[in-house]
Amino acid sequence: MERDLFLNLSPLDHRYYVSNRALFNQLAEFFSENAYIHYELKVEAALANVLAKRGLCSPAVACEIVHACEQVEPAEVYQEEEKTKHNIRALVNCIQRRVSSEAKPFVHFTTTSVDIMDSATALRFKEATLQVVLPKMLELESILIALARREKATLQVGRTHGQHAVPLTFGFAMAEYVSRLGSRIETVSKAAQELRGKIAGAVGAYNASSLFFDDPLEFEAEVLRELGLKPANYSNQIVEPEYLTDYIHGIISAFGVLANLADDIRHLQRTEIGEVGEAFEATQVGSSTMPHKRNPWNFEHVKSMWKEFMPRMITMYADQISEHQRDLTNSASGRFVPEIVIGFVAAVDRMTRVMQKLVVDQERMLQNFDSTKEMVIAEPIYILLASLNHPNAHEAVRLLTLESQKTGKTLRQLVNENEELAPYLNKLTPKQLEILNNPEKYIGHAEQKTEQLCDEWQQRLGIN
Amino acid sequence: MERDLFLNLSPLDHRYYVSNRALFNQLAEFFSENAYIHYELKVEAALANVLAKRGLCSPAVACEIVHACEQVEPAEVYQEEEKTKHNIRALVNCIQRRVSSEAKPFVHFTTTSVDIMDSATALRFKEATLQVVLPKMLELESILIALARREKATLQVGRTHGQHAVPLTFGFAMAEYVSRLGSRIETVSKAAQELRGKIAGAVGAYNASSLFFDDPLEFEAEVLRELGLKPANYSNQIVEPEYLTDYIHGIISAFGVLANLADDIRHLQRTEIGEVGEAFEATQVGSSTMPHKRNPWNFEHVKSMWKEFMPRMITMYADQISEHQRDLTNSASGRFVPEIVIGFVAAVDRMTRVMQKLVVDQERMLQNFDSTKEMVIAEPIYILLASLNHPNAHEAVRLLTLESQKTGKTLRQLVNENEELAPYLNKLTPKQLEILNNPEKYIGHAEQKTEQLCDEWQQRLGIN
Amino acid sequence: MERDLFLNLSPLDHRYYVSNRALFNQLAEFFSENAYIHYELKVEAALANVLAKRGLCSPAVACEIVHACEQVEPAEVYQEEEKTKHNIRALVNCIQRRVSSEAKPFVHFTTTSVDIMDSATALRFKEATLQVVLPKMLELESILIALARREKATLQVGRTHGQHAVPLTFGFAMAEYVSRLGSRIETVSKAAQELRGKIAGAVGAYNASSLFFDDPLEFEAEVLRELGLKPANYSNQIVEPEYLTDYIHGIISAFGVLANLADDIRHLQRTEIGEVGEAFEATQVGSSTMPHKRNPWNFEHVKSMWKEFMPRMITMYADQISEHQRDLTNSASGRFVPEIVIGFVAAVDRMTRVMQKLVVDQERMLQNFDSTKEMVIAEPIYILLASLNHPNAHEAVRLLTLESQKTGKTLRQLVNENEELAPYLNKLTPKQLEILNNPEKYIGHAEQKTEQLCDEWQQRLGIN
Amino acid sequence: MERDLFLNLSPLDHRYYVSNRALFNQLAEFFSENAYIHYELKVEAALANVLAKRGLCSPAVACEIVHACEQVEPAEVYQEEEKTKHNIRALVNCIQRRVSSEAKPFVHFTTTSVDIMDSATALRFKEATLQVVLPKMLELESILIALARREKATLQVGRTHGQHAVPLTFGFAMAEYVSRLGSRIETVSKAAQELRGKIAGAVGAYNASSLFFDDPLEFEAEVLRELGLKPANYSNQIVEPEYLTDYIHGIISAFGVLANLADDIRHLQRTEIGEVGEAFEATQVGSSTMPHKRNPWNFEHVKSMWKEFMPRMITMYADQISEHQRDLTNSASGRFVPEIVIGFVAAVDRMTRVMQKLVVDQERMLQNFDSTKEMVIAEPIYILLASLNHPNAHEAVRLLTLESQKTGKTLRQLVNENEELAPYLNKLTPKQLEILNNPEKYIGHAEQKTEQLCDEWQQRLGIN
Repeated sequence: MERDLFLNLSPLDHRYYVSNRALFNQLAEFFSENAYIHYELKVEAALANVLAKRGLCSPAVACEIVHACEQVEPAEVYQEEEKTKHNIRALVNCIQRRVSSEAKPFVHFTTTSVDIMDSATALRFKEATLQVVLPKMLELESILIALARREKATLQVGRTHGQHAVPLTFGFAMAEYVSRLGSRIETVSKAAQELRGKIAGAVGAYNASSLFFDDPLEFEAEVLRELGLKPANYSNQIVEPEYLTDYIHGIISAFGVLANLADDIRHLQRTEIGEVGEAFEATQVGSSTMPHKRNPWNFEHVKSMWKEFMPRMITMYADQISEHQRDLTNSASGRFVPEIVIGFVAAVDRMTRVMQKLVVDQERMLQNFDSTKEMVIAEPIYILLASLNHPNAHEAVRLLTLESQKTGKTLRQLVNENEELAPYLNKLTPKQLEILNNPEKYIGHAEQKTEQLCDEWQQRLGIN
Repeated sequence: MERDLFLNLSPLDHRYYVSNRALFNQLAEFFSENAYIHYELKVEAALANVLAKRGLCSPAVACEIVHACEQVEPAEVYQEEEKTKHNIRALVNCIQRRVSSEAKPFVHFTTTSVDIMDSATALRFKEATLQVVLPKMLELESILIALARREKATLQVGRTHGQHAVPLTFGFAMAEYVSRLGSRIETVSKAAQELRGKIAGAVGAYNASSLFFDDPLEFEAEVLRELGLKPANYSNQIVEPEYLTDYIHGIISAFGVLANLADDIRHLQRTEIGEVGEAFEATQVGSSTMPHKRNPWNFEHVKSMWKEFMPRMITMYADQISEHQRDLTNSASGRFVPEIVIGFVAAVDRMTRVMQKLVVDQERMLQNFDSTKEMVIAEPIYILLASLNHPNAHEAVRLLTLESQKTGKTLRQLVNENEELAPYLNKLTPKQLEILNNPEKYIGHAEQKTEQLCDEWQQRLGIN
Repeated sequence: MERDLFLNLSPLDHRYYVSNRALFNQLAEFFSENAYIHYELKVEAALANVLAKRGLCSPAVACEIVHACEQVEPAEVYQEEEKTKHNIRALVNCIQRRVSSEAKPFVHFTTTSVDIMDSATALRFKEATLQVVLPKMLELESILIALARREKATLQVGRTHGQHAVPLTFGFAMAEYVSRLGSRIETVSKAAQELRGKIAGAVGAYNASSLFFDDPLEFEAEVLRELGLKPANYSNQIVEPEYLTDYIHGIISAFGVLANLADDIRHLQRTEIGEVGEAFEATQVGSSTMPHKRNPWNFEHVKSMWKEFMPRMITMYADQISEHQRDLTNSASGRFVPEIVIGFVAAVDRMTRVMQKLVVDQERMLQNFDSTKEMVIAEPIYILLASLNHPNAHEAVRLLTLESQKTGKTLRQLVNENEELAPYLNKLTPKQLEILNNPEKYIGHAEQKTEQLCDEWQQRLGIN
Repeated sequence: MERDLFLNLSPLDHRYYVSNRALFNQLAEFFSENAYIHYELKVEAALANVLAKRGLCSPAVACEIVHACEQVEPAEVYQEEEKTKHNIRALVNCIQRRVSSEAKPFVHFTTTSVDIMDSATALRFKEATLQVVLPKMLELESILIALARREKATLQVGRTHGQHAVPLTFGFAMAEYVSRLGSRIETVSKAAQELRGKIAGAVGAYNASSLFFDDPLEFEAEVLRELGLKPANYSNQIVEPEYLTDYIHGIISAFGVLANLADDIRHLQRTEIGEVGEAFEATQVGSSTMPHKRNPWNFEHVKSMWKEFMPRMITMYADQISEHQRDLTNSASGRFVPEIVIGFVAAVDRMTRVMQKLVVDQERMLQNFDSTKEMVIAEPIYILLASLNHPNAHEAVRLLTLESQKTGKTLRQLVNENEELAPYLNKLTPKQLEILNNPEKYIGHAEQKTEQLCDEWQQRLGIN
């Protein structure tokens, strides 16, 4: 059933699809309705195979069913559903229609609809994660590592509360995201591996499969093993929801890391700061009326996508609740869950593209630092004075900074001129003195820690 | 650009579209990307008309532009955007391409992109509300009114905490939704009328339009008047966000009313309660393995849709924040706002269809009431005793109910046998006695209030 | 029951209480448990008065009850509740204990617990709004109006996407909040007026009151009239929830306006921007290790409070759902609703204090504008060229801005040197030319609109 | 500073404190302001100890500081903060006031405020988890295991969509919560172990500590080791937020499991179902006007607490974002995070108390099952027919169920009378036939799986 893209209602199916077809087509292999139905068919096929292995039906029957499962198409299932008003019954009818009367009964044998749907869901999220989500996250992680390493010694003023604080390096600032994204890659990966299926029947007690097998749990495990899945620790009509809840928590908390990075970068792009920039194409228009503008719109976009998808965690938590052996109030909402992953992957992809081309203006970073470097030195002065037993170092320095603001003299000058402080300064080590006289050297272990974090995460994540 | 529906990612663009094409096609007239672009073109056309009225350009120029605006199609704009990387610049280019060089400059004249987009957004939400949302809500309201009136005298046990309480009528129970939905119809209607546009330029200070007009605010008002809109009380680059926030609050709080109704009805459908039922079609399948099941799946679906869309209010609140004269972090998220309205309207439509055919089992309602009617009478007994100055009516009745549970005698029996209570009972009015002896008459003003509410809302909402 | 403050668990009951005792004590008059119980007693007293008016009991009985209601204290009710396990039954026992046996039965007569609790809730939110919330909001509004007026002509660069755009005035930027906060004051005020009570009994059908009155709705209205409340349009055991939901939407959407203002101001305080500042006390410490820091911590605090309270709207929406005539799943959550108002008022109060002392650095604003003013002029140039029928004004200007960046020449210079543009420039009006040559005059109607908005809101809100 | 409890604003500090003092006092040891300050003092003390170990100061100095840290009290710190307007500077002043001038400089040496606060936060959440949260969760888990084992063979009808489905056992239904709560205990436990501290200075680059140590990371690790904590993988001014975000996800997803259990039980308590009940005390009042009511109010309360606290996850996600090396917009909101844990523990505790005394009405369960057992048998009939190659088993059974509804004959009767089905029935195994004739035996592996899950979780969690 063909339809004009621009008649679609979701931005995922028009605007964002059009702007990134390759990625969205890749995602559609797991998350379109077409994909969902094909995953359900895979589960039905796996079931048939195990029925044959166990002698319930002949290998030929299984073969017929598997073959049929490869042929059924969504449009056909939907047409059938108009009659049945039940999606899996429709799917089963479509398979049965293609097989001999001997094979028909073994289609969907002993299972309930949700056995098929929940197993298909686990499988498609897991495979999408392995094939798209994690590779995309790793790609971004690699770029962040490269950026952090490259800029590991680039002096930048540290900022707390938007105010200049003590210095660090831009590489160290980026290492934050190496670490936080790295940790989220592990979280998402573990949670995806834990997604589980079920072949346990209408209320999860193996009522139907127990009619034929003495070991229905083993039967369930076998069917799922065909698909590379493990059975849920418990299921009633549905798989216990926490596997998927944990997975989406992984995705959404990773999205938060992206949003923070986006915010950091876009603020660094403020006209008055200007430390980084997004590379622009020659024909690109910044604003319809202000042709000179260079907006950090990709970073704003990522933040905006986070605002759209983050609150959907509420739906996941609400969907943990299903009455007794199940109500269907998680059904429609469950169909929207893939959108969260899609939104996230699109944001990762965009972030990768813009971070890859991030222009770092080292000179501007230096200028910004220089504008306050004399005040920045307040911290080491205070600490060194304190270490030398100055009775009230914090207050002494605070008063000097006020004096500096009044007189225009630098803090270093005032410190050096201050007779009361002289005996303390005489006791400093050469390294300490060097830092006092060169505020730009007051960067602590920024460079070393950047290296160490890049090494660590490359190793933990197997990035070359 | 044609594409297979089943490759779409959002359930709104495959499953729910397929299951309700008529409605979704109607919604697409306001909320598809196609519609959005056409609404933007309407704003550009209105602008041209006012420029001509004010003599900035000739009527012929305006005519050219208006005509061009009627011809531009989304696919073309998207193609152009690949070059410009800017959607409204692309739109403007597409219009300009179609007009004479004399007319070109007056396309988009003095406006900023968001003037066009925000005005188009206000307009499409407003028109969708008037043409679809409100009519759909009113249709459901009419059905609820008819149901409440029809069942106004149908005895039903009142339930608090899932426990039988004192009786009422099923019509009175439905009148709850007549009132709550009625109030939400007014809320949504008012909020839609308040959606506003802007023609105030890049930072909202009428910088550009002031180059040509001494009364740029009046110029703005004129352009918007062409579209049936009012200007925002304040705008910077964007319209102040509270107009849309209030509107979506109206939608989401109305969705909560639907969700509550859905919950009420599906619990009344529980096997053990069975007071209402969803009419089933002959070929419909209840469950793939349990062919006898009749599930309240439409009501479950409505609840599920509420769980999906309700949390998105968080996005609206987060999008109230836009730095200085605007950042773009509300842009992508803003593109998903129509989905909330779509999800809501789809739920209203579904609710309408199933409530219209709701089967009410009056006999079962009576049976359920009868099962506890002897205990229900505890309340009036206690109150009447109290009114007659019994020193501790509440405790006296509580002890009798415990005795009733032990002995199996009815509360009425125990009360009548109780010598201590006799002098009190003798003082009751005939009406009071009648109720004590006929618990089913203890329904207060249920019937009258039902009538009154139906009358009131029919009048307030202009329903025949 | 006395207890050390620092053993309290909620920051509202230790840290924020300590830092603003006057305000929190004022709020406790409506929102402490003490206040809640006293409001419930007011409802019980109003009920007794109306019973006497209607002759159900004697005036002396009503008088006894009213007097008792003035004496009951929370500690006593809680002690009683340990026995009854029911808060309102405990309250009633405490009242009854104080009155004659003749009066006892008329305590709580014909009502259900929620009649008392929901009416008390409506009343305390309404009175808190009239006595604290609105006065606090109006105080902030007045300060914003004064600030906007004072700075109406203070040149500031407009910023979109954190980038310099065309100029406006700082007063105009503040007028945004005059308008948005003004609109929220009206929203909160209207919603508070709409809070409703109920005296309709256990399931809302007036079952009990109908035993004694032919006009139970009028009886309900009378009791509520004593309290200055109207009855809910519909109630079952509880008042229909939308009145309170709308009210809290008003509060939370107003909180969003504060959060946006806080963000704007704290970014303007960035070291590199420095256009405004929070006045600091002499002994105040900016940072424990960086004594020179001046952090915008009050604005950060307001944003943080918004993050804490805004998501609680989800609870309000979830509490719209109550099964059948009521379940109690909105009871505990309902007890936390006042916190939202408290958090909001505390934020308004803090904002008022810091905005009152906001230091505006007009010189720095000018410097910031000057740094890009040559590029800012791109917009009017483009628009004026277009108006004069330049065939491709946007592209022409875009190329000139690129040239300007390369050559270091100002855009004005390049424009003036450009032969192709000369014939167009010759056609400009004097006013237009003046703006082109004085970018700081390109502020549109910023000043006038600021005045107009301040006038409008002072009038609408009755601010002198 | 003493204060009347009933003047407190948060229900956690009045109503819920009063109703469960023992538990809330225990929680106050970690989560009151008093506790927070004491934990901060522990971090300051640990720091002093390591400074002495490393020879920066003498053991005597460290001893002085440690001793002072044991003496400082919150009231004093708050008084000091009135001057400093900075909580940690106030704390430091209070410590310094108690030590010799030789020791003063080594108080808080090289650290920034957040080093102390974030490490204290990690520590108090971790210790609260080990000492209260996990023990409470394990207690509930034990009760659920005991209940599941005891009722492992108690026949109950399975319910999907609120409709009777195939049977299971009540123990199996409870095993769902054994599994889901068990998994959440592991999640919370792991996340608590992962909570991390930091001693990395103002922007996380060890600027200050590098002035004195060549191995500042090892110095950080040593200080934290004193407290039983590990350093964050990365920190700027703050610990990377995902450790706490993951922990709260664990708590909130566990809360969802409670909420589901609460819903299940309260629906099973519906008057019409009546399969379980909450044991009532003799003096307890069910309703102020309906003395016979037995409401599932504890389960409703737990659901309500979940509605209150679940949405606060949004705050956690929003607080993942902190600009550059940190802004303070996570500060106020961060102070409310303990409330989530408190609300959860209170709900676990309540659940434990009511589940412990849960009354299971096995007879009523059997009656409910019996009411539909004839229809329930539809599933095994259909499956067995299918397995025997009946060409259209599903449809055949569906038609028979319709016939059964019309004629009043049981499905078994109709099946046995049906000539077309006879040849199929003859092929059934004895076990299969026994189930067909005894629907109550159609419970699959419910009993075995219950046992297995109880065994598994007892072992995994080390429960005796």
